Amino acid sequence: MRHSLVASVFALLSLGAGAGAAHAEDALRDRAKGLFEPIPQSAPALPGNPATPEKVALGKMLYFEPRLSDRRDMACATCHNLSMSGVDGGLLSGGHNAQLAGREVLTVLNAVFNKSQYWDGRTADLQDQVVNSVMANPKAVLKTRGGPMAINPAELAATKQREIEQLKTIPYYVEAFKKAFPGEADPLVYDNIGRAIAVFEATLITPDSPFDRWLTGDDAALDSTQKAGLALFIDKGCAGCHNGVNVGGASYAKFGVVANPGPEHLPPEDAGRYAVTRNKADRYVFKVPSLRNVEMTAPYFHTGSTFDLKKAVAVMAEAQLGQKLSDDEATTIVAFLKTLTGKQPEIVLPVLPPRDN
Amino acid sequence: MRHSLVASVFALLSLGAGAGAAHAEDALRDRAKGLFEPIPQSAPALPGNPATPEKVALGKMLYFEPRLSDRRDMACATCHNLSMSGVDGGLLSGGHNAQLAGREVLTVLNAVFNKSQYWDGRTADLQDQVVNSVMANPKAVLKTRGGPMAINPAELAATKQREIEQLKTIPYYVEAFKKAFPGEADPLVYDNIGRAIAVFEATLITPDSPFDRWLTGDDAALDSTQKAGLALFIDKGCAGCHNGVNVGGASYAKFGVVANPGPEHLPPEDAGRYAVTRNKADRYVFKVPSLRNVEMTAPYFHTGSTFDLKKAVAVMAEAQLGQKLSDDEATTIVAFLKTLTGKQPEIVLPVLPPRDN
Repeated sequence: MRHSLVASVFALLSLGAGAGAAHAEDALRDRAKGLFEPIPQSAPALPGNPATPEKVALGKMLYFEPRLSDRRDMACATCHNLSMSGVDGGLLSGGHNAQLAGREVLTVLNAVFNKSQYWDGRTADLQDQVVNSVMANPKAVLKTRGGPMAINPAELAATKQREIEQLKTIPYYVEAFKKAFPGEADPLVYDNIGRAIAVFEATLITPDSPFDRWLTGDDAALDSTQKAGLALFIDKGCAGCHNGVNVGGASYAKFGVVANPGPEHLPPEDAGRYAVTRNKADRYVFKVPSLRNVEMTAPYFHTGSTFDLKKAVAVMAEAQLGQKLSDDEATTIVAFLKTLTGKQPEIVLPVLPPRDN
Repeated sequence: MRHSLVASVFALLSLGAGAGAAHAEDALRDRAKGLFEPIPQSAPALPGNPATPEKVALGKMLYFEPRLSDRRDMACATCHNLSMSGVDGGLLSGGHNAQLAGREVLTVLNAVFNKSQYWDGRTADLQDQVVNSVMANPKAVLKTRGGPMAINPAELAATKQREIEQLKTIPYYVEAFKKAFPGEADPLVYDNIGRAIAVFEATLITPDSPFDRWLTGDDAALDSTQKAGLALFIDKGCAGCHNGVNVGGASYAKFGVVANPGPEHLPPEDAGRYAVTRNKADRYVFKVPSLRNVEMTAPYFHTGSTFDLKKAVAVMAEAQLGQKLSDDEATTIVAFLKTLTGKQPEIVLPVLPPRDN
């Protein structure tokens, strides 16, 4: 296997460890700091939805609560599996009655840092995403704070009324909503389900990745190959879209800017954000996904069309940047991408309360 | 509401607190000790399958591992939800491609103490249950240590080969099987999946229920209504089948010994254990389910035909014992049944390893 020039340079530099090596390291870090930010150590505040321990605890229970679904068999945690870095690891994400949702599930980890939610960005924040996913109903057009929106009929096919009724049969929840939303006359209402789950989801962040530790000054957190991979990731142009705190998640891009990646990865019937905006310029435009924990979130693309991260990198380089990567270059970029795996949230499974008997 | 005589006697006795009260308490405890045993504090050993920390840890990961299913979307934990006392809380348990399994899921909690597994007892122990559920394939007839057995086509439709192949793409598992099964030339084999999951499942026990604390001498662990419920539970004959450490799980019984409970609860097309033994005496015979944590494991019966525990008690009394309980009697028995809820296992979600990239 051919060694990339960049990797060789870094390997030599780390042997040398003199002023030149230190300078190269600082220069790379300066470039990286202009493009990326580390994941913070604690959950960010949500505007208009302050976190309290009671609300976070309730949100965690609701996140695992299958009685939020019509058949009582799906929870947020079903597809956003916290053992699997917040995805389902499936070929295509299943929903109510095993309908295929048509797009691969996006991770809930660090989702609070994304500028919008879903592959087509159809909700602005976590609270609306919860509302959209839980309420999904083939017959409904849902009004959110951001206006009416398209609904994925394949998700948890519950109706507002049924869900509230189910929760009200469980005495623990009646009390827990009172504590989480003090002073409200009728706290067990639909919007508060969204608020509680959103504050819990805001805690699902993955700080302390090797990349973040390096970015904040720990030279030894990355090895020479990983540093070479970072340099390539920037030089090849990947960081043009995959940047910011989530190394993505901050913008939209057409899939196939330079070359169509083919129907396996980009089936013509899913025009992406166009379905939301009806703007022709948005045909085949998707949210740039975060690459945080990407080694854990296979399969890749909105189609889940490959489990092979190196192949995904190669496809993206060709489709978006018009570059054919060598096998060594793709391997080196993957070595960098694996350094984006942070400390996974430690989740003690909640014990869900029984209904009244 | 009419007070039952037994409840009134216990209420009076607890006011009295003299020698008579103490004697009644001791007499009830002596009867109970002849029928029931407390859940032990630690996991029991499995014959021929010694538990090691490495094997239990591997089994826990595999229990949560959706890559053991054909579509990578179902794990043991999907239906045996450890947030829901080891059941799915669904109307009827879904399996591969959302086929209905036809029978309500039985809890994995304390299942190690059952004499057999499944409603029809078709596997003797946890290891065979794992093999049966994971391997379920419409076209397969599976050989287990207990001989060939019927397979539920609706469970995780994986094939032996596919499953092993999937695990072998994940370097962490290759190492973890070596550590869990030291000295074996090829430890990543099918039977070892069953062994590892079985030793983890043996840890899923719920000691320290109020009933067990009372049984072992703590008079204050049950209130007078709950003690009256226990006395009724014994006197009415419920404990004839629901006895032993699991308050059930130790024998088979025809559903409808005295009176057919009707097609809602006992649809004629599911003849229970008859499908396993082909013995006419086993028509409509089912395993007596454990009542441990029963308030958490709704819906009830193999059909999941009611979420109402009091109704379930009333149906059973009529169908099995030919007794029409008063509303107060059923309420009092339910008060006792709720004391069978033990300390739920504290489960920190495992973080599942990525495949090789």
